[in-house]
Amino acid sequence: MHHSGAATRDNMPQIAAALLDRLRARSPRVHCITNAVAQNFTANVLLAAGAVPSMTLSAEEIGSFVADAKALLVNLGTLDRERREATAMAVEATTRGSVPWVLDPVFIDRSSPRAAFARALIASIPKAVRLNAAEFSTLAASEPTREALSAYARDKKTVLGLSGATDWVSDGERFAAIANGHALMAKVTAMGCAASALVAACLAVEPDGWRATTAALVIIGVAGELAAEKAAGPGSFAAAIIDTLYNLDGPTLIARAKVN
Amino acid sequence: MHHSGAATRDNMPQIAAALLDRLRARSPRVHCITNAVAQNFTANVLLAAGAVPSMTLSAEEIGSFVADAKALLVNLGTLDRERREATAMAVEATTRGSVPWVLDPVFIDRSSPRAAFARALIASIPKAVRLNAAEFSTLAASEPTREALSAYARDKKTVLGLSGATDWVSDGERFAAIANGHALMAKVTAMGCAASALVAACLAVEPDGWRATTAALVIIGVAGELAAEKAAGPGSFAAAIIDTLYNLDGPTLIARAKVN
Amino acid sequence: MHHSGAATRDNMPQIAAALLDRLRARSPRVHCITNAVAQNFTANVLLAAGAVPSMTLSAEEIGSFVADAKALLVNLGTLDRERREATAMAVEATTRGSVPWVLDPVFIDRSSPRAAFARALIASIPKAVRLNAAEFSTLAASEPTREALSAYARDKKTVLGLSGATDWVSDGERFAAIANGHALMAKVTAMGCAASALVAACLAVEPDGWRATTAALVIIGVAGELAAEKAAGPGSFAAAIIDTLYNLDGPTLIARAKVN
Repeated sequence: MHHSGAATRDNMPQIAAALLDRLRARSPRVHCITNAVAQNFTANVLLAAGAVPSMTLSAEEIGSFVADAKALLVNLGTLDRERREATAMAVEATTRGSVPWVLDPVFIDRSSPRAAFARALIASIPKAVRLNAAEFSTLAASEPTREALSAYARDKKTVLGLSGATDWVSDGERFAAIANGHALMAKVTAMGCAASALVAACLAVEPDGWRATTAALVIIGVAGELAAEKAAGPGSFAAAIIDTLYNLDGPTLIARAKVN
Repeated sequence: MHHSGAATRDNMPQIAAALLDRLRARSPRVHCITNAVAQNFTANVLLAAGAVPSMTLSAEEIGSFVADAKALLVNLGTLDRERREATAMAVEATTRGSVPWVLDPVFIDRSSPRAAFARALIASIPKAVRLNAAEFSTLAASEPTREALSAYARDKKTVLGLSGATDWVSDGERFAAIANGHALMAKVTAMGCAASALVAACLAVEPDGWRATTAALVIIGVAGELAAEKAAGPGSFAAAIIDTLYNLDGPTLIARAKVN
Repeated sequence: MHHSGAATRDNMPQIAAALLDRLRARSPRVHCITNAVAQNFTANVLLAAGAVPSMTLSAEEIGSFVADAKALLVNLGTLDRERREATAMAVEATTRGSVPWVLDPVFIDRSSPRAAFARALIASIPKAVRLNAAEFSTLAASEPTREALSAYARDKKTVLGLSGATDWVSDGERFAAIANGHALMAKVTAMGCAASALVAACLAVEPDGWRATTAALVIIGVAGELAAEKAAGPGSFAAAIIDTLYNLDGPTLIARAKVN
C-alpha cells in the first residue's frame, strides 16, 4: 500500500479538521454493536459529531442495517450470546457491503473467551482496532511498545489506536502520538467506547484507516480538553464533551491538536 | 364518536396545562417496552413530567406489570426476540386491563420485518402511534400529507402523532399542527422515544387520544424550546429539557404553545 | 459476632470519610448485575466514588469476573432469563472468591416471581440488602418498623439498608438513622440502584457490613444534598450528584452527615 506524502502526522490537524467537516456534511449512519452501558452515550457522541447512530442487534435485521451503513463498530463490552451472533452476522455483512469496521476489544485482559473471540474477529481484518495497553498486551502477548504496535498492525493488516496518557496510532508503517485528552475522560464510563465509535464515523468519510483513526483520537482528545475547562466533575464533563464536540470548529481543532 | 366543542385545537394549550397538572397529581405508572439506548432518558423524562416508569421485559412478569399500569409504550427500536415476545404479552394484557397504549415504530423504514411487525401491532389498535415522516410513508405507502394522515388514522381507528419541523396530530376527524420544538431535539438520541413515552403518560390521565397526543407533543416541544435557551449544545440540552419539564408551569406552557 | 465500641453511629461520619478515602486509594472493581435502565448511571456513580465498574452478564465470563472482583451488586430491576442465570452463577462465584455482595430487590412488591427469587437469594446470605419500605414489607410480611427491620436482619444474618425520607440501617444489633438526602433523588431514575452499587463499593473496602452500608448511604445522601444546591431540576441534578461525589472531601462529609 502506498501512502502519499500528504498523509504524515505533520498535517494531521488539518486532515482531522477537514474530516470533521466531511462528517457533518455527509451525516453517515454508523451501526454500533456495543454494550448496554455505552449505548446512550455512544449515540449522543455520534450525533454531536455529525453522524447518525443505529444499534439494533436483532438477527433478522442486523445484516441489512450493516450492509447499508457507512461504518460498523463492534465493541465487546458486556458480551452475550445475542451480541456474539449479531457480531458474526454484522462482520459478514461488512464484506458484502464493503463497510469499514472497528473493533473495540473491551476487557479482553480479564476474560479469555472474550480474548479468543477478539482474535477470531481480527482475522476478519477490521479496518481499525481501538484498545488500551492491557488489551493490546493480551492480544499481542507483548508490552505495548512502538515496535510491538507496528509489528502487530503490519501482521494483521489493520490500524491500531492505543489509548493512554498519550494515544498511539500505527498501521505498521506510519505512526502518530497524540498528546491530547484529559484525566476526566477516564472517569466517565463508555468514553473509550465512544472514541471507538468516533473512529468508525471517521472511517465512514475517510478511506485511509490511519488518518481516520488518528483524526478521531485527536478530535475526541481536543474535545475532552476543552470540556474539562468547563466541567465541575465527571457528571458535567460528560455533558460538556458532547456540547464541545457539537461546537468544535476546524481552527480550534488545529490550534489545540498535539500530534507527533 | 362524538367530540365536544371543548376539544378543538383552539383550547389545546389550556387542555395541555390541565393535563400536565393531572399527571403530577396522579403520578400514573407507565410501562415501557423500549430500546436499551432510550431506557434511561425515557425514564427520566417520565419522572420529570410526573409519571412513574417501569420497564421490565421478563415473560413471567410483564403481563401483571402492564395490566396494573395506567399506560403502555411499545417502541420498536433495537427490536429483539425478547422484546417481540414481551410486546405480544403486553398488548394482550392491555386488553384485559383496558390500558391505553402507544406504538413508536422506530426505523420501520429501514427494516421490512420490523415494518411487518408494526402493521400487525396496529391491527391490535393502539390508542396512538407516534412516528416520523419516513415511518409513516412505510406504513401507509403514501407521502405524509394531511389527507393521508387523516385517512390512515380513520382507517386504523387510532391517533397519529407525526413529528417533524411542525408536528401533526390526527384522529381522522380532528387535526392539530404544533409549531413548537427546537433543532437540538434531533441531536439527542431517544428524544422521539421519550416523546412517545410522554404520549403514553398523557393517555394515562386523558381518555381522548387526540387531546392526549396533542398535549404531549406541545409539552415536549415547549420544554425543548425553553431548554435550548439555556443549553450550550446537545449534552447540556439533554439535561436542560428534563429540568424544564420538571419546572414547566401551566401559564408558561399556555403562553408558548403554538397549536393550529 | 463482636463489634468494637468504635463502631457506633456516633463516629459513623468519621468512619464514612475514612472509607471514602480508602475507596479512592484502592479503586476496587465492583461487578454489577443491574438493569439496563441503571447501568450507565451506576457505572458513573462508581467511577465518581473511586471504584471501577464491570457489568458483563455472559454465562461464559461472569464467574471469573465476579471471583476476581472486590464486591458484587445484584439488582433485580428488569429481571430477565439472562440476568437470572447470571445471578445464580455470580452468587456461586462470591462463595469461591469470598466476595461480599449486595442485593437490591427492586419492585418485588409488584411481582411475585421476583419476590420469590429475592427470598431465595437472601438464603444465600448477601452481606447487605438495600431496599425501600414497600420492598421490605413484601419480604418480611411486616410494616418497616425499627423492630421488624432488626428482627429480619438478625434472622437472615444480613444488614438491611432501608431508603426513605430517613434511611435506616440495621444488622439486627446496631441501628443507624440517616437524615441526609434530598427529594430530587427520587426524581432521577436508578438513584436507588446507584446507592446499592455504592454499598457494594463500600463493602469492597470495609468488612463490617453495617459500617459499609451506613457509610454508603451517608455518602450518597450528603452528595445529594450538596448537588441539589446547584441543580435546576432532575436533569442537572443527575450530573451534579456525580460531580459532587467526585469532589466530596472528608471534612465536608463529616460536617454534613446526620447519623443517629
